[in-house]
Amino acid sequence: MAVDDSRAVLPLGACPVPQSRYEHILLGHGSGGQLTAELIGKLFVPGFGGDVLGALEDAATLSLSSGNGVHGPRLAFTTDSFVVRPLFFPGGDIGRLAVHGTVNDLAVAGARPLFLSSAFILEEGLPLDDLRRIVASMRAACAEAGVTLVTGDTKVVDRGKGDGVFITTSGVGLVPEGRSLSIHSARPGDRILVSGTLGDHGIAVMSVREGLEFETVLESDTAPLNGLARTILETCSETRCMRDPTRGGLSSAVNELASASGVGVELEETAIPLRAEVRAACEMLGLDPLYVANEGKLIAVVPPEHADRVLGAMRSHPLGRDSALIGDVVAEHPGMVILRSRVGGRRVVTLLAGEQLPRIC
Amino acid sequence: MAVDDSRAVLPLGACPVPQSRYEHILLGHGSGGQLTAELIGKLFVPGFGGDVLGALEDAATLSLSSGNGVHGPRLAFTTDSFVVRPLFFPGGDIGRLAVHGTVNDLAVAGARPLFLSSAFILEEGLPLDDLRRIVASMRAACAEAGVTLVTGDTKVVDRGKGDGVFITTSGVGLVPEGRSLSIHSARPGDRILVSGTLGDHGIAVMSVREGLEFETVLESDTAPLNGLARTILETCSETRCMRDPTRGGLSSAVNELASASGVGVELEETAIPLRAEVRAACEMLGLDPLYVANEGKLIAVVPPEHADRVLGAMRSHPLGRDSALIGDVVAEHPGMVILRSRVGGRRVVTLLAGEQLPRIC
Repeated sequence: MAVDDSRAVLPLGACPVPQSRYEHILLGHGSGGQLTAELIGKLFVPGFGGDVLGALEDAATLSLSSGNGVHGPRLAFTTDSFVVRPLFFPGGDIGRLAVHGTVNDLAVAGARPLFLSSAFILEEGLPLDDLRRIVASMRAACAEAGVTLVTGDTKVVDRGKGDGVFITTSGVGLVPEGRSLSIHSARPGDRILVSGTLGDHGIAVMSVREGLEFETVLESDTAPLNGLARTILETCSETRCMRDPTRGGLSSAVNELASASGVGVELEETAIPLRAEVRAACEMLGLDPLYVANEGKLIAVVPPEHADRVLGAMRSHPLGRDSALIGDVVAEHPGMVILRSRVGGRRVVTLLAGEQLPRIC
Repeated sequence: MAVDDSRAVLPLGACPVPQSRYEHILLGHGSGGQLTAELIGKLFVPGFGGDVLGALEDAATLSLSSGNGVHGPRLAFTTDSFVVRPLFFPGGDIGRLAVHGTVNDLAVAGARPLFLSSAFILEEGLPLDDLRRIVASMRAACAEAGVTLVTGDTKVVDRGKGDGVFITTSGVGLVPEGRSLSIHSARPGDRILVSGTLGDHGIAVMSVREGLEFETVLESDTAPLNGLARTILETCSETRCMRDPTRGGLSSAVNELASASGVGVELEETAIPLRAEVRAACEMLGLDPLYVANEGKLIAVVPPEHADRVLGAMRSHPLGRDSALIGDVVAEHPGMVILRSRVGGRRVVTLLAGEQLPRIC
């Protein structure tokens, strides 16, 4: 298959980094793209060892039975730190994001999210009113998602050694017996669905930082996806996997899928839902929307015979009204993602090199 | 009962803060003392609501059964952020501390620690070699404690917005059916045991920062306490509760116990194990060892008839050789901790006001 490599996506905003030429942490190590993958693959996985960590799912799923059986529900366990700035942005804030991020990692693993923990790293001088707003927002987000925050921690660092508030949420949930979603299980012929417009979160946050204005207020899509995920799994128990395309955007999600499952992915550019404001902002800022973070969207990979039914179910859910079928899993070019572009060309969608939008979550 | 309130402990290094006169986060909000208690009691607990969070145990214990029964093992779930500086200190480093801190919170809740998560907030410019050392140290600490690190996250913040590495570890474990340890369950007559010398961790870290030198190298006591905790519980299934006296030291641990159980606590100063170097450093730095953090010690509260047997079992464990019986739970002065001092006086041991040793863990 002919692939026009010379058109491999290099977002204008990104700064390509010579590989293995760094001996210090770069901003791009937090991008969710290629440098993050290198850090995980070359430092954390070999450093820590362990099969579960090596599986690189959004949440680890674990058997609690001490015997040799794999009976009963399994535990899903996940963690994420949030360092977004500004702390408050259109459509959300760091607290809401922290709750949704962890709920969603559990949800796309097929788990029912149950309990959350929250650890705060506060910078000396933070207004208590900011913290109160964040806590109120987290409480509302927990209630909306049907999870309970059960334990926490607070540390304070001296002025100039932090940035207001960092929040790390962890979550546990239960995966019903017999359910097994994995980014290793996509097969040629499967179809790829997305639950709505892409890039809203990243562009909403970036717009505040850059002082961009639109005719309408562009808001983050941050939302709890456990209800939508349940709808999908109830409609199609054979769903191969789900991912929430956060840092690194759709590109990271489908590249990880292609790589883990040893399959190719073909995306149809015209099918990918995009708000006009996001398209305009991306052109203005030199960003590629495929690389921009989402906080209330998921992709689902399903067997072809179920795709239409799942799409219908997704569209009937309030958080999935703009759902679309955006691509296919193919046997060709395993590990590689190809975009069939608007004008009929084909280009490789690589992992993000460098960093496009730092501290977006 | 006559209590000499005028001698209430006010550590020389601490800066008392007028109550409710602040509208910003102070370093003392991370002290583990009075300001931390205020932040939790006045902001987090009312803000988040929730009975489990309000219970203020070191780990939340949760039923996983969806039915109405409380049968079967319960899940213990805990989280802690670590912001210690320097990152490497005699006897340990931030990674080792992060593993032990979470293992120990599970262990003193009576749980068998199983799985850990680790979320890193890295500052741009951090040498990768530092990160490699920390990861290697965490792996060794996990192996030693018999836990598996199963999931993680990495964020990067721009230079000057962090401080090298912050680590948040969360952990899950199982509490066997029928076991229930709680800081609400101490009763008059119970005896208080400590597993060894106090203040080693805080003074070891502080010595590096202040450039203090001793004849022998004073090392942090950071260690996994799950083995020792299991020994205690196997010896005495009626153990009321255990705590690891980390931030805020012995003072915070016993004050929280007295307050939660509605009992008084009396400590015998001469019975409290202290290294000569720690005593000397505390005198030099104007610190009270009762307020200094430990990372490899626990206190156990047991019914009086079991105290000697538990003490013997603790002393037979490598991490409990210097264990001692240091005090009693009494019916008098509920909520208050009294120290019977070396010279025969009695003084109130209050919660730490302000901050004595910032960023010790």
